[in-house]
Amino acid sequence: MDYRKHFRVEPGRRIRLAERDASDTGKHGSRKDADPEIQKYVQRMDELQYLLFADGNQSLLIVLQGLDAAGKDGTIRHLFTGMDPQGTLVASFKQPSKEELAHDFLWRAHLRAPSKGQVVIFNRSHYEDVLVVRVHNLVPQSVWSKRYALINDFENMLRRNGTHVLKFYLHISPEEQLKRFKKRLEDRSRQWKISESDYLERELWPKYAAAYEDVFAETSMDHAPWYIIPSNHKWFRNLAISQIIARTMDEIGLKLPPTHVDIADIRRRYHAAEDGERESS
Amino acid sequence: MDYRKHFRVEPGRRIRLAERDASDTGKHGSRKDADPEIQKYVQRMDELQYLLFADGNQSLLIVLQGLDAAGKDGTIRHLFTGMDPQGTLVASFKQPSKEELAHDFLWRAHLRAPSKGQVVIFNRSHYEDVLVVRVHNLVPQSVWSKRYALINDFENMLRRNGTHVLKFYLHISPEEQLKRFKKRLEDRSRQWKISESDYLERELWPKYAAAYEDVFAETSMDHAPWYIIPSNHKWFRNLAISQIIARTMDEIGLKLPPTHVDIADIRRRYHAAEDGERESS
Repeated sequence: MDYRKHFRVEPGRRIRLAERDASDTGKHGSRKDADPEIQKYVQRMDELQYLLFADGNQSLLIVLQGLDAAGKDGTIRHLFTGMDPQGTLVASFKQPSKEELAHDFLWRAHLRAPSKGQVVIFNRSHYEDVLVVRVHNLVPQSVWSKRYALINDFENMLRRNGTHVLKFYLHISPEEQLKRFKKRLEDRSRQWKISESDYLERELWPKYAAAYEDVFAETSMDHAPWYIIPSNHKWFRNLAISQIIARTMDEIGLKLPPTHVDIADIRRRYHAAEDGERESS
Repeated sequence: MDYRKHFRVEPGRRIRLAERDASDTGKHGSRKDADPEIQKYVQRMDELQYLLFADGNQSLLIVLQGLDAAGKDGTIRHLFTGMDPQGTLVASFKQPSKEELAHDFLWRAHLRAPSKGQVVIFNRSHYEDVLVVRVHNLVPQSVWSKRYALINDFENMLRRNGTHVLKFYLHISPEEQLKRFKKRLEDRSRQWKISESDYLERELWPKYAAAYEDVFAETSMDHAPWYIIPSNHKWFRNLAISQIIARTMDEIGLKLPPTHVDIADIRRRYHAAEDGERESS
């Protein structure tokens, strides 16, 4: 099954999150079933990251969005730990600093955009400025409602400079979120992460859903598509995302650059001489 | 064998690189022998990285230095690919940009220093300013010779802010370097990396050795030690470095922070209520 087609939001199409099954697992019955495929895609992503780095003309920006406990950190941990950290960066967008707030909302995202050859993962992103900002009325509607167009222009500019933008919404159900919160409550190594606000935000679920639905309708573009990934099952989330990334990278025409030097000449000049030296010594 | 003791340069001690065996493999006979231990240390580094991140009071700066083909990229690939990219960053120091050159030599290193909770790997570093810069006479001796003290002050300041600094010199022999260059010449996927200057630099080996020997004598500190790692055998290099990092991190007293909230209270207030709701629905 090609999850690029299956979970992509067609540009301009309005979808309803409530109608999307967060427990969907495509054609896969179980984690055991999916694991070999995940491994294959993760391995391929790693090979393609090397090629992206070597090629040096394009880059990849992966945006991860989702409510608390949707699995953003886990996705990074499971899918990108296998990539060479030398070419792979994670940028986490938390509450903006004073300096960031003193600029336009895209400034801090632009600073962290990938340079050529790089893979950058945004853990949350500039989309928070039409999500949490909207839900909590941090700026008036007249301001945030103009931001979709600004985001599209921004991503279009990145694309024109060789950056492929892939945006993933990790879709979980309210029941699954509660289950994960409970698990954290029991896990000593993760209790320190819990804050009262996790629970307060939960009550705003319908407002977040509406805000996300507008995001998808306004900003899913051919050159920067949104994918809505059923994420109640972590293994399926990993499968779908790794497949989409691997297949996308497979098709962007990456290739090794030509050599800068005359290999035959180097072989002759340096190695023949040194071999000779050693043999006679 | 505790490689922290074995390969550490004692502060103030002058060593001669020519007397260090680059093919040393400690007590290990072969890669097969060492692999389970490497795996164990890499796994432990990963656990400790999580703890470092959670603890949030300390950080780790790993400096990798070595001549061309000494294995800096390979070390990063083999030892740090297993760490969560969300808390692990690589900073590569290449030829400085115009902006960097317009500042003092430590400026660009300081910019990339780890924030609390982070692991940062320097692939080359501020030490290039007393190595390549010295060997090629890019600044006069009166300038570079003052830099050791500036480097010590800088690393001391980092240490006082909770940063542990570990510095590794990947020690290979000239014969091993030549072997690796030849391998690159035969490997289509790596030929693009070869430049004429690799071969020209090779002729400066004795000058680099002298510059490194001064670096070790002047800047190996208890709070920021240099380790000279025999690196002709990649597997042994991986073993020694991963052991040194894991054991160092094991001893710096990392711990999970306390929870910010009253877990029992949350359990009672939110979950009891929601469980009740669901049961009655």
